[in-house]
Amino acid sequence: MTYDCIITNGTVVTVNSNHDVLATGTVCIADGTIRQVLPGGPANSLPDAGTVLDAGGGIIMPGLVNTHTHLPMTLFRGLADDLPLMTWLSEHIFPAEARHIDPDTVRTGTLLACAEMLLSGTTTCCDGYFYEDHVAKAVRDTGMRAVLGQGIIDFPAPGVPDPSRNVETAVEFVRRWNGASARILPSLFCHSPYTCSPDTIKAAKEKAREAGCLFQIHAAETHAECLQIREKFGTSPIQALDAMGVLDQDTLLVHAIWIDERDIETIAARKSKVTVATQSEMKLASGIAPIARLLEAGVTVGLGTDGSASNNSMDMFCEMDMTAKLHKVHNLDPTVLAASCALALCTIDGARSIGLSELTGSLEVGKRADVIVLDTAKPRLTPLYNPVSHIVYAACGADVRHVLIDGQVLVRDRELISMDLRDILEKGAAAGRRIAGGRRQ
Amino acid sequence: MTYDCIITNGTVVTVNSNHDVLATGTVCIADGTIRQVLPGGPANSLPDAGTVLDAGGGIIMPGLVNTHTHLPMTLFRGLADDLPLMTWLSEHIFPAEARHIDPDTVRTGTLLACAEMLLSGTTTCCDGYFYEDHVAKAVRDTGMRAVLGQGIIDFPAPGVPDPSRNVETAVEFVRRWNGASARILPSLFCHSPYTCSPDTIKAAKEKAREAGCLFQIHAAETHAECLQIREKFGTSPIQALDAMGVLDQDTLLVHAIWIDERDIETIAARKSKVTVATQSEMKLASGIAPIARLLEAGVTVGLGTDGSASNNSMDMFCEMDMTAKLHKVHNLDPTVLAASCALALCTIDGARSIGLSELTGSLEVGKRADVIVLDTAKPRLTPLYNPVSHIVYAACGADVRHVLIDGQVLVRDRELISMDLRDILEKGAAAGRRIAGGRRQ
Repeated sequence: MTYDCIITNGTVVTVNSNHDVLATGTVCIADGTIRQVLPGGPANSLPDAGTVLDAGGGIIMPGLVNTHTHLPMTLFRGLADDLPLMTWLSEHIFPAEARHIDPDTVRTGTLLACAEMLLSGTTTCCDGYFYEDHVAKAVRDTGMRAVLGQGIIDFPAPGVPDPSRNVETAVEFVRRWNGASARILPSLFCHSPYTCSPDTIKAAKEKAREAGCLFQIHAAETHAECLQIREKFGTSPIQALDAMGVLDQDTLLVHAIWIDERDIETIAARKSKVTVATQSEMKLASGIAPIARLLEAGVTVGLGTDGSASNNSMDMFCEMDMTAKLHKVHNLDPTVLAASCALALCTIDGARSIGLSELTGSLEVGKRADVIVLDTAKPRLTPLYNPVSHIVYAACGADVRHVLIDGQVLVRDRELISMDLRDILEKGAAAGRRIAGGRRQ
Repeated sequence: MTYDCIITNGTVVTVNSNHDVLATGTVCIADGTIRQVLPGGPANSLPDAGTVLDAGGGIIMPGLVNTHTHLPMTLFRGLADDLPLMTWLSEHIFPAEARHIDPDTVRTGTLLACAEMLLSGTTTCCDGYFYEDHVAKAVRDTGMRAVLGQGIIDFPAPGVPDPSRNVETAVEFVRRWNGASARILPSLFCHSPYTCSPDTIKAAKEKAREAGCLFQIHAAETHAECLQIREKFGTSPIQALDAMGVLDQDTLLVHAIWIDERDIETIAARKSKVTVATQSEMKLASGIAPIARLLEAGVTVGLGTDGSASNNSMDMFCEMDMTAKLHKVHNLDPTVLAASCALALCTIDGARSIGLSELTGSLEVGKRADVIVLDTAKPRLTPLYNPVSHIVYAACGADVRHVLIDGQVLVRDRELISMDLRDILEKGAAAGRRIAGGRRQ
């Protein structure tokens, strides 16, 4: 048969259930779907294809999955750092959001984020923000795959001045985007158990169940939150959410840092998913999530970068690397989060945690062709003994050469071919000048 | 006057004692020395110069200083990971060194390391290994600035089969390289207080004092080492070294993880320097050095990447970022190691810790022109509110566009112009094939 596209002449890291690695191989794509993953090098006769992408002896692997983002916050990266959490939020981030977040800035910030993600090999993200309609339109225009949640909070928020309409606004968003775009799944994102009432959380989860969509919520992020929740509910954030009946397999708990053994058992029993945002949690000094224990308990864990104001990067290669290293030193055990485990967190496990593992997260026949190619002809990736080790510990987003989503080439030879990068950078810089000006007033 | 070279049209981050940042500025260079750091943009009339390097609106900053490397170990990157320390060392690294380290592989590995460092903005390193003569020749050929220490260990080692000649061999190295090259300072590197006897350590330090050179030693790296030293000497590694009389201002303690308050006071009182290798220490699960306390006590601290087999990257931007974030979460305080402090560790403090702060580590008139330029026209560096925040938390080595050492342009528009990169990569890959073959036998 003739394929639409083949990617050849590279080491294929499949991240399938056997962790198969093909020393040299070819990925064959038709109708946006992976049809074959063939072993063999360029000496073999190649199948016919409309497009032949040469991996140049590099690594062919699944696109990365970033399970926690606030995309428009790229506009606030570096606006304020190294501050106590509440000072940072209340004196810098919240005022900047109140003053500057509107449909235009949401689009600009989202396009900046997508450009950064695509250029660094992320093909899928899971987001939550306000004006999510405008996030969705921008993401759709870039060709990325995403689960997108309209934010719900019991305070006036950008685009939702009346909090009594917060759940309704989110439900309207879900209705509008359900089935509207092949690569976008709508979701509901309750901010947290300390900023949403039990009634809000329960109503939102009910609507998520009705729509069959992912329910996201920040939970157990800081020690202060846990004290506040204990005062209010007499228990932990996880137990409080469980008592509200919102923990099930379609709930994604974001952070889950301050959790105990009972919380872990509850999360595992309910089959809820967890996303950890290592670098953001380190930078904000929130704490260290017990990833090793969660995995041991059978919980599906994904990794996310969080918003760019608190990370300050969306490079999932850095996230993998730092997560693996942090948990080794935290447990004083170098065998914790081995490279293959860290890679799974950012690919197949990430996809599983947001309900997309049938479509993406590994290079397997029948999955959508979300594929990236790393250029390994670089000093820091030479020699190459173990491609999984290099992916996790040595590579970075800048090593990404080609990116395909649904079989469409979106980055070729490090160039974004699906977007006008210069225009995005100009609009981003202009928004930055307005934000910096507003701050100085 | 006419300068040899000016670097213009960029934000100048000086890392001088005032942490001055010039929103736009020009660095003027003659005879390899910084002669002026002028404020003002491209609209101003520029001084005459032989070469005008356009920073393109990016960041002009000092080259980074990597204070702990084992350069030839680039050849072992990814050979073995995620193993208990002693298994990793005794079953993988030591056998690979015994089998494969010779003058040729040392040259190849060193050139790979220098290519990686230069391309990612590191202009100075401080190394320790065996066959250091061959390390020195390779480093000299690349144009990098370095302090290079011949390794001393009380066991047969590559190039030093008879350990009774270890100090003598190192002294010969120092004699040969003292004054032989403007950019290379020789040093002595005793491996550690658990692999070198007190006699060896004292003799080596005496020779270092005679030669006026830096004395390096790994110390207090693991908890197991501390137990071993306590059994042997009845005290901590730092106190044992102090009792041997080797702690002074020209001693660089590498790691210093398992140290207590008394050790910190001793290090501060002796004015000894400390280098921390955050990522390597995380990956090997050695522990977390008390950097915040050391700085508070007035100790000069630098950051290093360690050998590539245990990091597995020599990108000092990652090292800065991960160090700042690790110490925030470790102390549960986001104000710890603020961006300007993290940047200083990798520039002026690093230079100070290896005795080079008169020459490099900041952009100041009279210093040698070790300068790098970052390209900020990228999604993850747009908008730019605070260049120091972006340097530490958002940039990576791949953002480095130009690199100058002693005023010589070694990297221009991301291309290594001082070295034949293709040849280095080919030789590195060939060495890797031999090492992988040797492992499979």
